[in-house]
Amino acid sequence: MSYLVQKFGGTSVGDLERIENVAGIIASEVRKNNKVIAIVSAMSGETNRLVEQVKQTSPVYDGREYDVIVSTGENITAGLLAIKLQDLGIPARSWMGWQIPIITTSMHSNARILEIKTENIEKKFVEGMKVAIVSGFQGISKENRISTLGRGGSDTTAVAISAAFNAKRCDIFTDVEGIFTTDPRIVKNARKLDKISYEEMLELASMGAKVLHTRSVELAMRYDVNLQVLSSFREKIGTLVCREDKMLESRMISGVASSKDEAKVTLSGVLDKPGIAAAIFGPLSESGINVDMIIQNVSENETTDITFSCPMSQVSAAEAAIHKASKKKEISFKACVIDTEVAKVSIVGIGMRSHAGIAKKMFESLAHENINILVISTSEIKISILVEQKYMELAVQVLHDAFELDKV
Amino acid sequence: MSYLVQKFGGTSVGDLERIENVAGIIASEVRKNNKVIAIVSAMSGETNRLVEQVKQTSPVYDGREYDVIVSTGENITAGLLAIKLQDLGIPARSWMGWQIPIITTSMHSNARILEIKTENIEKKFVEGMKVAIVSGFQGISKENRISTLGRGGSDTTAVAISAAFNAKRCDIFTDVEGIFTTDPRIVKNARKLDKISYEEMLELASMGAKVLHTRSVELAMRYDVNLQVLSSFREKIGTLVCREDKMLESRMISGVASSKDEAKVTLSGVLDKPGIAAAIFGPLSESGINVDMIIQNVSENETTDITFSCPMSQVSAAEAAIHKASKKKEISFKACVIDTEVAKVSIVGIGMRSHAGIAKKMFESLAHENINILVISTSEIKISILVEQKYMELAVQVLHDAFELDKV
Repeated sequence: MSYLVQKFGGTSVGDLERIENVAGIIASEVRKNNKVIAIVSAMSGETNRLVEQVKQTSPVYDGREYDVIVSTGENITAGLLAIKLQDLGIPARSWMGWQIPIITTSMHSNARILEIKTENIEKKFVEGMKVAIVSGFQGISKENRISTLGRGGSDTTAVAISAAFNAKRCDIFTDVEGIFTTDPRIVKNARKLDKISYEEMLELASMGAKVLHTRSVELAMRYDVNLQVLSSFREKIGTLVCREDKMLESRMISGVASSKDEAKVTLSGVLDKPGIAAAIFGPLSESGINVDMIIQNVSENETTDITFSCPMSQVSAAEAAIHKASKKKEISFKACVIDTEVAKVSIVGIGMRSHAGIAKKMFESLAHENINILVISTSEIKISILVEQKYMELAVQVLHDAFELDKV
Repeated sequence: MSYLVQKFGGTSVGDLERIENVAGIIASEVRKNNKVIAIVSAMSGETNRLVEQVKQTSPVYDGREYDVIVSTGENITAGLLAIKLQDLGIPARSWMGWQIPIITTSMHSNARILEIKTENIEKKFVEGMKVAIVSGFQGISKENRISTLGRGGSDTTAVAISAAFNAKRCDIFTDVEGIFTTDPRIVKNARKLDKISYEEMLELASMGAKVLHTRSVELAMRYDVNLQVLSSFREKIGTLVCREDKMLESRMISGVASSKDEAKVTLSGVLDKPGIAAAIFGPLSESGINVDMIIQNVSENETTDITFSCPMSQVSAAEAAIHKASKKKEISFKACVIDTEVAKVSIVGIGMRSHAGIAKKMFESLAHENINILVISTSEIKISILVEQKYMELAVQVLHDAFELDKV
């Protein structure tokens, strides 16, 4: 008998009928002789409702009290699911973070897991418990106060529990069937992937394929946890996120990601001298701006142009930081031009490392459709570009076709 | 600096505006240099909503999981109130039952408090905390699981905390201004009492004056806790529930209580032999029937009539228990007559002990209005009667006038 971890997100436990459905999924794994540890989120909408109450009470609030309040939703789901499983004749019980315990840092609302004790849960399995239902997203600080891991933290709980219990697999149930080669709303023949590597998943997740919380994928990679993303609404095998060497054959490209949540900022006529990049990106970093792509053109005379992209929501803050640095004479430039009508399109694939010509094929395919590339940025397993926003869907379709992602 | 305990019920914390109002009440006590321990209920309607979810999940459920679910409402209120107090510049923090801890029996959904540790809260007061906000109605069992004290248990939490911390007073905030001489909806000139003894309060509370949970009054009496019942909506002194000897002068009668939730059951032609009462009331007790008043007439020949009253909701069960006992030949009677058109009216007062003629005055006043008394039952500080239901309001008014309860 080995441990199997199954995580059910907010929509999967959205109402009592769905909780019953989840109980059925777990029951079938118990019948296969698995020791199931289920991680549950709050019923969909519940956490938002609680956050709203906090914010209405005071715009500034104590993170410790925030955590007390928002962590209640998961406990309700855990209790209801335990009752439903018992109703099916399966010995199940709920576990709050502090009962296990899941010990975290004291960074409330955004705590990190330090340690998970396994003895208490293990003991109950020995005594006959068949399912442990763990409230996701929460733990306890060393000060004995409730902590939460931040939004999407239930995925992190699931992966951390999987690592601590050495689970054979960690199923992440969600409202999609798995990881697709690209957004099926954009490309009709997008295909569900059977397997994807952690690295590829990370590149996709951070770019809008919001199926898995980035932190949870990093954690899974570090502890070698086999993640499966699948739907709680359909009985189908999902996508396995695993180590690269567990994949029979590595495709060149696994997926195409896209996002409209990007803005392009260009500083022109920047005085080009050593340390200029640090002078610009230091203040941006201090202001908490997530700068993504950066390009610097070759200097003409003594000046250069520097372009970067950042999330749409941070554009004003970025602009303010730049002007502040300019006032302090830390940087000098002619103009700061902001373009919010851009989109980011990326191709991701571990096969890229060993196959030459991927970039060439990407650029040629886009050129063939007269799509102008504004910015390019590359990593070992990803090539990202910015294009005019109106071309985004076309660019995604063109690249999906060019790399034949609809074929296995 | 001494401890002051203040308990706020569901309607007092019914929405964010009311929570703000409660924060103001607490703040004014902090300014008077009191160390306030506030006990909070769930926002009104919340506990019912959670109970409903449990019942919809399964008609039969694990009390331990029920407790996990229904205890969440109090935690939300505690967190929100802490945030609001901090907003007013007052160092406050929430305390869940397990954090204090409040250790209880393992009788889930109806646990009893075994011990309250004061060190953790005391330590925080020393460190500068001004208000401890405690989730009412919950504790932790020796098995490290959440327990609840049953409905109305927040009053019990408040009194137990008051006893443990030796608080100078325990304010129970509710939606009424205090304890009245009788139901103001029946008698226009019903008067709010300044003081009432524990014993009188117990007799009134168990009979429909549903302001204070009976258990909490018993506990207050045992540990000599000064209880004050008052409204969180009006700035007025309420009613102090205290030891008899703290009352300057004991009135003969403190109040008139009434209830329509009673039924009268008469067994006629019961064979009168030793042990017959046990033979009748044994089976009733085993069936969980709360028999209230009992009268047995003097025997004529070898048979007698036995009449008792019980809550309306238990009449069918009582009848079934009697017929079952009859079939088993444990008892023998001619007829079982049930009358649900009755009402119970009681006068309560510790002064009754030392004043003769109270019963006479009661019966005469009612006779004067041609109200027929069906059953009489007396205790040291209470006389209860059953009358035809249609006379209930009149009987209450007549007795209120006869004992001049509108006058101080």
